[in-house]
Amino acid sequence: MSFVYNADPERGWEWQRLFAQRAPDIDFRLWPDIGSPEEVRYLGTWAPIEDLARFSNLEVVFSLGAGVDQFDFAAIPPQVPLVRMQEPGIVATMQEYVAMAVLALHRNLIDYIAQQREANWQAWRVRPASQCRVGILGLGQLGAAAAQRLTALGFACQGWSRTRRQLEGVACFAGDDELSSFLSSSQVLVCLLPLTAETRGILNAELFAQLPHGASLVNVGRGPHLVMADLLEALDSEHLSAAVLDVLDPEPPPADHPLWRHPRVLLTPHVASMTQPESAIEMVLDNIARHRVGQKMVGTVDRTRGY
Amino acid sequence: MSFVYNADPERGWEWQRLFAQRAPDIDFRLWPDIGSPEEVRYLGTWAPIEDLARFSNLEVVFSLGAGVDQFDFAAIPPQVPLVRMQEPGIVATMQEYVAMAVLALHRNLIDYIAQQREANWQAWRVRPASQCRVGILGLGQLGAAAAQRLTALGFACQGWSRTRRQLEGVACFAGDDELSSFLSSSQVLVCLLPLTAETRGILNAELFAQLPHGASLVNVGRGPHLVMADLLEALDSEHLSAAVLDVLDPEPPPADHPLWRHPRVLLTPHVASMTQPESAIEMVLDNIARHRVGQKMVGTVDRTRGY
Repeated sequence: MSFVYNADPERGWEWQRLFAQRAPDIDFRLWPDIGSPEEVRYLGTWAPIEDLARFSNLEVVFSLGAGVDQFDFAAIPPQVPLVRMQEPGIVATMQEYVAMAVLALHRNLIDYIAQQREANWQAWRVRPASQCRVGILGLGQLGAAAAQRLTALGFACQGWSRTRRQLEGVACFAGDDELSSFLSSSQVLVCLLPLTAETRGILNAELFAQLPHGASLVNVGRGPHLVMADLLEALDSEHLSAAVLDVLDPEPPPADHPLWRHPRVLLTPHVASMTQPESAIEMVLDNIARHRVGQKMVGTVDRTRGY
Repeated sequence: MSFVYNADPERGWEWQRLFAQRAPDIDFRLWPDIGSPEEVRYLGTWAPIEDLARFSNLEVVFSLGAGVDQFDFAAIPPQVPLVRMQEPGIVATMQEYVAMAVLALHRNLIDYIAQQREANWQAWRVRPASQCRVGILGLGQLGAAAAQRLTALGFACQGWSRTRRQLEGVACFAGDDELSSFLSSSQVLVCLLPLTAETRGILNAELFAQLPHGASLVNVGRGPHLVMADLLEALDSEHLSAAVLDVLDPEPPPADHPLWRHPRVLLTPHVASMTQPESAIEMVLDNIARHRVGQKMVGTVDRTRGY
């Protein structure tokens, strides 16, 4: 009985060490050294794996990231559950990144980075965080956690989701009918939606036009949420003032992409949230234990809904 | 009876509007339109004002910033108290800036800014904030508030002050004897000391050598706390990995200063904390009321100690 890990080897070695301590009955293997395919019971992977049929005793596919949009659901046998990574480390690192990005926008950091290169010592007025309204698109586990962190930092925070959520201190909007009113009052928009057929390309010219003049964008969802040409146009026309992008399509962007040197865009290489081996392994082992006794695992994907 | 305001006019107009509402009995005047000098009871100023003797009925000098190192104490009549600005807005904006700076260092933002220019999509491993130890030099009102905010963000936080402080969740070091042990465990060092004869030049080669290899620095104290040549050498030798500097000496630095284009330094133009008129005026009017009945004002400077 083996667990095969298929992601970056640096963290893989930590998983291996932790598995040896915590679950010595499971043979932990680092891709591509998978051993005998019929012994593989559990696959932990970030990227899709081809030809899953060879793993004839496969019981669970664990996504090692919070999203599962990278998988072709049809390629995973219907009796094999696909489980998203929902562990405290992924949530904490996302909260940190969103706090950093929103603080950077609120405190004019993108201006100061550009000014530093121009030897320009110009100060911008600081307003209280309570006067800065941040809107979170998507109030799943990550969106809700980001909203709570921003509220704790003093920002006026509101959120939007497909179905109504209730979050303390956060004005919650829901459904298509309320999207426009949500957008028109969001000075900073943070995208934390799952990527589905419905949300692909949602960050487009029509949406940007509904944001207040001078608004800014943080995309920590997925690259294909954003229509890049529409963002560049909104920045050039100064309707949007700045953007912090952690995800792109494709990743990495081509070397001649205008983003690399865009003065109003801060770019990071898909690092907003990162699965932390110590806490992730708790979640995986807990789910394996649930699965063994026929309980539903935390984070099991509804393949119809897409997340 | 007048209050003379001498700082940036944009916020001055807000002070004027608020004074008219809240203290109509006091004639509010914007520098240089001071009216009759003998009517000036209160001076609110960021920069020192020459020839204070002409204000023969002056009762209080309010610094409009948290620091008072810009003043020559001997030039202020001994019977006229000098009061530092201690208002919630100055504290909140400093907490925000320190959170932003420490998150930026913890999450490799200085690397990513440099990498973006080089079209380099390299991800750096994210570690939990609890594994990042931040040391605050100076645990006055601002240092203590910054420590509490960092603790709430999950950082392992410790502080150093001249005399022992007690802060929940923050390991407190005190005095010369404990400085070395404080420094050797601070991966990010945040300077929030007052500028005095004792602290001038404290951020020097000898201090940097006691920080762990790869440590980083946030200076939100005063420019003269830092020996610039020593910082540049520590960065060049890679003993220090990065610095976020909000204060310099002089401000602005000359156009040919190496900081303007230093890839390991993030520079902001003395904006870390900013007095917020709405809350600052509460503190000033409260202090005026205290002074009128002979009570000690909040923030009165001990001229021997220097803050």
